[in-house]
Amino acid sequence: MTPSPRRSGPPGRPRPASPLGLHRVIDPPGVLPQAAWQLDASPAIAPDEVRVRVDRLNLDAASYRQIRETYAGDPDKIRAAVLDIVATRGKMQNPVTGSGGMLTGTVEEAGPDSPLGLEPGQRIATLVSLTLTPLVINDSLYRWDARSEQVPCEGHAILFARSIAAVLPGDLPVPLSLAVMDVCGAPALTQRVVKQGDVVLVIGTAGKSGSLSAAAARQAGAARVIGVVPTRAEAALLREAGGLADAIVIADARDPVGLADQVAAAGGPADVTVVCVDVAGCEGGAILSTAPGGTVIFFSMATSFSAAALGAEGLAADVTMLVGNGYVPGHADFALDLIRRVPAVRALFERRVAP
Amino acid sequence: MTPSPRRSGPPGRPRPASPLGLHRVIDPPGVLPQAAWQLDASPAIAPDEVRVRVDRLNLDAASYRQIRETYAGDPDKIRAAVLDIVATRGKMQNPVTGSGGMLTGTVEEAGPDSPLGLEPGQRIATLVSLTLTPLVINDSLYRWDARSEQVPCEGHAILFARSIAAVLPGDLPVPLSLAVMDVCGAPALTQRVVKQGDVVLVIGTAGKSGSLSAAAARQAGAARVIGVVPTRAEAALLREAGGLADAIVIADARDPVGLADQVAAAGGPADVTVVCVDVAGCEGGAILSTAPGGTVIFFSMATSFSAAALGAEGLAADVTMLVGNGYVPGHADFALDLIRRVPAVRALFERRVAP
Repeated sequence: MTPSPRRSGPPGRPRPASPLGLHRVIDPPGVLPQAAWQLDASPAIAPDEVRVRVDRLNLDAASYRQIRETYAGDPDKIRAAVLDIVATRGKMQNPVTGSGGMLTGTVEEAGPDSPLGLEPGQRIATLVSLTLTPLVINDSLYRWDARSEQVPCEGHAILFARSIAAVLPGDLPVPLSLAVMDVCGAPALTQRVVKQGDVVLVIGTAGKSGSLSAAAARQAGAARVIGVVPTRAEAALLREAGGLADAIVIADARDPVGLADQVAAAGGPADVTVVCVDVAGCEGGAILSTAPGGTVIFFSMATSFSAAALGAEGLAADVTMLVGNGYVPGHADFALDLIRRVPAVRALFERRVAP
Repeated sequence: MTPSPRRSGPPGRPRPASPLGLHRVIDPPGVLPQAAWQLDASPAIAPDEVRVRVDRLNLDAASYRQIRETYAGDPDKIRAAVLDIVATRGKMQNPVTGSGGMLTGTVEEAGPDSPLGLEPGQRIATLVSLTLTPLVINDSLYRWDARSEQVPCEGHAILFARSIAAVLPGDLPVPLSLAVMDVCGAPALTQRVVKQGDVVLVIGTAGKSGSLSAAAARQAGAARVIGVVPTRAEAALLREAGGLADAIVIADARDPVGLADQVAAAGGPADVTVVCVDVAGCEGGAILSTAPGGTVIFFSMATSFSAAALGAEGLAADVTMLVGNGYVPGHADFALDLIRRVPAVRALFERRVAP
């Protein structure tokens, strides 16, 4: 391992730790860790950092697919490629896709000034991307068959003061907890926006973020939850799970007029609309189904900024449109609590999480 | 002209007018006017519609450029192309770029149920796109030299109940009013979001939407306005105009760490950050320059939805992020009022609007 540049400054003038991890950026200097080509992943922690003993990486699906296809599925080459990225960059960020993933592990050492509230021995998952997490792999990935994006491994990772990690609860299966944590920003922001008595529309209610958001809306005091699903099969699932939506609408969310008409017939327009389907072209329907003065929260990564902005203008729609921020303080605990307390959400998740 | 399909239904059962103009959609049926291939632009108005005698089209720059380049600048062919689009589609929506533009004209007839508050004889500009405005051109465009996107013409256009139009004020030059109306959503939303005592950061303060937003923030009671500009020349312009910003920061808004450091030194972080520069990659800097619990309003069409969503998550930033909606009730009057009352804004605009 090369000497850490954190320690290569003038003697007696160590660079102070940055809550964002700027002190770990080697190349190019001055950028955020996510934008960096190379991070310093050395194990010694600053007073506000945490070191995690890693047991598993969960590679981003697009990243894993790119590597697998490049090496035609050859396990040795796939393992070598991942090892090379991590050794070269000090983080697992696929240079082609730019994406990372997340990891699970056990807290090994928590600096005295870390605000994350973690203690040695706790099993955690990181909720910030691997693209900004300093990482070292020590075991040559010998336990990984390279056939899925689940990578059992040994190594260490560093969390900054402003990283996000959640303790994996002992009472829930790990895959279920990870699936919940993956989308936990949606219910937290929904709960923050919905007010007592609101009509709430959730587009994609039978999905992961959608079912959690519907439950969060209910908890925040929604008078009526209208659930939109694309097919009869999803409507049956949602009905079977029970209790998440007061009305179920089967509609193509890309058809603004059709969606708004059906939502109106089901008790709309909505005071708050939550878009949870990763399908392009849902902006107009969400806007048109929302009452003047209402709010649309876009959680779908398929949302087009310009389609939302120009769509609202073209419809002369006075609606507040929020970019769904994946981070809300306390979001993981809130979502895990929902899945414990709302059987319908748990039932929908368990269908989607492979055992 | 072919018979209007609005009148081709069963006798005695005319299709009711839709505030969104759905009754004017010919092909494909059931979509919004903006998404339609062809609109019915016949001159007879429904009770909630308004007919405008058009005197000028202002083609979207991208649309005009595409047509000019396709016909190598030949004026006859350019005129023929625009005439053909309008005759075929019943609206001026370039089939290649998908974009339109806006128009000015004089109100000819306002239906008794129109909510737009317009009266015959008023000179207006449309604030919704030509892509959804029924339009007929009668003069073969003989007055247009085809050398710019400004198209003097004669014809008529139809406004729906939910269209947006603004009366051109008699006390301001028309080009100035049009430039103000083009960006009037930004100051209106800024004024709505900023609270008494806030620190407000405006990225792109010397520009059109930026200068209006800075003035709106001041009017809403901002305690401190920090203006970001990219160059010393723009800083000098802003300083010369006087009074819009309490602190001027010259920075590259695409460098998150550098921007946030400079904003902090100038009195930040901000409670409200308004992004008004049409440059890609400003999401991280805006987020990092905003205090926890603060709000970022993205007005730039270069904003990437995923960069904003993932950026905030990667920075563990608890900020509310708004998609800048171009429509806020009363936005045009509010912005025109600002340009009348704030000499600095008018000075900056007059530099940018060619006489």
